Amino acid sequence: MFISCVTVYVKENHIQDFIDAAVKNHEGSLKEPGNMRFDVLQCIDNPARFLLYEAYENEEASKAHKLTEHYLKWKETVDPVMAKPREGIPHRVIAPKNRDQW
Amino acid sequence: MFISCVTVYVKENHIQDFIDAAVKNHEGSLKEPGNMRFDVLQCIDNPARFLLYEAYENEEASKAHKLTEHYLKWKETVDPVMAKPREGIPHRVIAPKNRDQW
Repeated sequence: MFISCVTVYVKENHIQDFIDAAVKNHEGSLKEPGNMRFDVLQCIDNPARFLLYEAYENEEASKAHKLTEHYLKWKETVDPVMAKPREGIPHRVIAPKNRDQW
Repeated sequence: MFISCVTVYVKENHIQDFIDAAVKNHEGSLKEPGNMRFDVLQCIDNPARFLLYEAYENEEASKAHKLTEHYLKWKETVDPVMAKPREGIPHRVIAPKNRDQW
């Protein structure tokens, strides 16, 4: 399993635009065969900060995500509304190890 | 729903100690009535960096977690092996909104 945690800072006048685009990306990503989760979270203390919690069967599935139509559409929409470059941190899973819990 | 994302940096000679304690905390936390997930992840680029992805029904359940025996045992074990103070960032959920997907 391969988990990418992507922190995004959005320009304050484009928060809703980002949310709309992220929800569409979430919906498309869940249909990918190698995707296990795609959670979109908003920081409570800073509504312009978001976390995308993306869980894939393996690193190849994460790479395949970046070739999908919904990802490319999302990227095109959100690149101009980001306050700074987004940061994606790759992780391995310590727990839960059971695939059924993802 | 209330999600706490906790980043932890561990002293390099105590990585396995931290993993063992975090797995026990994971197992105990999943039994809490207000817990939805407790993922333990290790950063691929820096094995001394971890993420705890803790999902609760609400903020009260998150507070109740910090009063449990398994949390207090975990805290006692890991406080001395942390390389710097841990950082927990509270989030609200944008997607998925459906409780069944947690």
